[in-house]
Amino acid sequence: MKKSIGILGGMGPMATADLFQKITALTAASCDREHIRIYIDSNPAIPDRTAAILEGGEDPLPAMTDALRHLEACGADCLIMPCNTAHYFLPRLQPLTEIPFLSMTETAARRCRELHPGRTVGILATAGTLAAGIYQKALAAEGVPCLVPEPEEREALMQVIYGGVKAGADPEQYRKPLETVLAALSRRGADYFLPACTELPLAFQSLGLACPAVDPTLELARAAVLYCGYPVKE
Amino acid sequence: MKKSIGILGGMGPMATADLFQKITALTAASCDREHIRIYIDSNPAIPDRTAAILEGGEDPLPAMTDALRHLEACGADCLIMPCNTAHYFLPRLQPLTEIPFLSMTETAARRCRELHPGRTVGILATAGTLAAGIYQKALAAEGVPCLVPEPEEREALMQVIYGGVKAGADPEQYRKPLETVLAALSRRGADYFLPACTELPLAFQSLGLACPAVDPTLELARAAVLYCGYPVKE
Repeated sequence: MKKSIGILGGMGPMATADLFQKITALTAASCDREHIRIYIDSNPAIPDRTAAILEGGEDPLPAMTDALRHLEACGADCLIMPCNTAHYFLPRLQPLTEIPFLSMTETAARRCRELHPGRTVGILATAGTLAAGIYQKALAAEGVPCLVPEPEEREALMQVIYGGVKAGADPEQYRKPLETVLAALSRRGADYFLPACTELPLAFQSLGLACPAVDPTLELARAAVLYCGYPVKE
Repeated sequence: MKKSIGILGGMGPMATADLFQKITALTAASCDREHIRIYIDSNPAIPDRTAAILEGGEDPLPAMTDALRHLEACGADCLIMPCNTAHYFLPRLQPLTEIPFLSMTETAARRCRELHPGRTVGILATAGTLAAGIYQKALAAEGVPCLVPEPEEREALMQVIYGGVKAGADPEQYRKPLETVLAALSRRGADYFLPACTELPLAFQSLGLACPAVDPTLELARAAVLYCGYPVKE
């Protein structure tokens, strides 16, 4: 029995469209009817996750729960969230529903181990994701060595994410700060990168950056296609 | 009071992702929270619309209605369908709900008149859309002169749409047939094109075709952003 997907999205909306596009492109289908049924609630009004983690900002859980109820009403068989920082709230969100969430952070960490065994990954993420140690813990559980950005590099990444991609800015405006962070992490020993904020694969793509990376959005898309019982296009 | 959008999608799924992406890119927003709430039911199991129109194939209305009920349950304020051929069924679908549909065909025809007054448009569409005269009628209502493909050109377009984009084929496989149809319509007097099957703007983009065109998916996205009370990025 093939399954459907519920996407708890809007964090941000372009990253949600990116996940939807990646699921569709990864599904080995020769016609519409061989694709997965997907329900999306793209709710950009969900309060900022990093602000909630770091600054006592508004709790995003009520707005996430509102979207969750819609996806339940649609009949989704599994749930995914195209926002790495939002996974900080997953331990509070999962008990609110019987529908299983597929974890982007666990999926991405597992793929790092599988694809680059023994190599060191440089984590690129929001200040909230980094401060909460979301990926440091997920990667440690898989035995993957990692490096994190220094404080000024974290600030530069926040500017790329918030002032750049989420603001719909011209990608060339954030090419230099992003490339500077990548170069610094490489110098310190990163063999490849984890663009672990869903806006960052969009930035990589817009800028045509070809550095070795494991894209958590792509890996979550792959995991969801397989979970639903559909063939993956290799 | 700003409004939300319900997308009755899956016809096909990549075209649905394209509409979602275009709405997001067109919204003048400086952060997530300035974007529109969007609900999507991407239901690729909706029976083929052209087969229903031309060959007495399975009626798509029950599966479309199933998706409609999900979008109602989410609380969508307006409905849009990223499938031109599906608009043939709109007169039967609209009476089933109190939520207003924004018509892609009417929107695109109006934009043809506004953007290219007095010029002749070449309609590129499925056999179902062309046989039902969906765009011929919508364009006539706006006083826009149009040309339609000849029978063998219609067959070539169906191959581009079904054997190409919907099948996830390498775009280069359908470059020549698509360019041949464009050239033939140009020779017969088309000044610009209406890629009036939601897979065709994807084909144009994949192939980097730069011919003058009014993209119904983009125009529907623009109409939806404005309907919902959000500013459009120009």
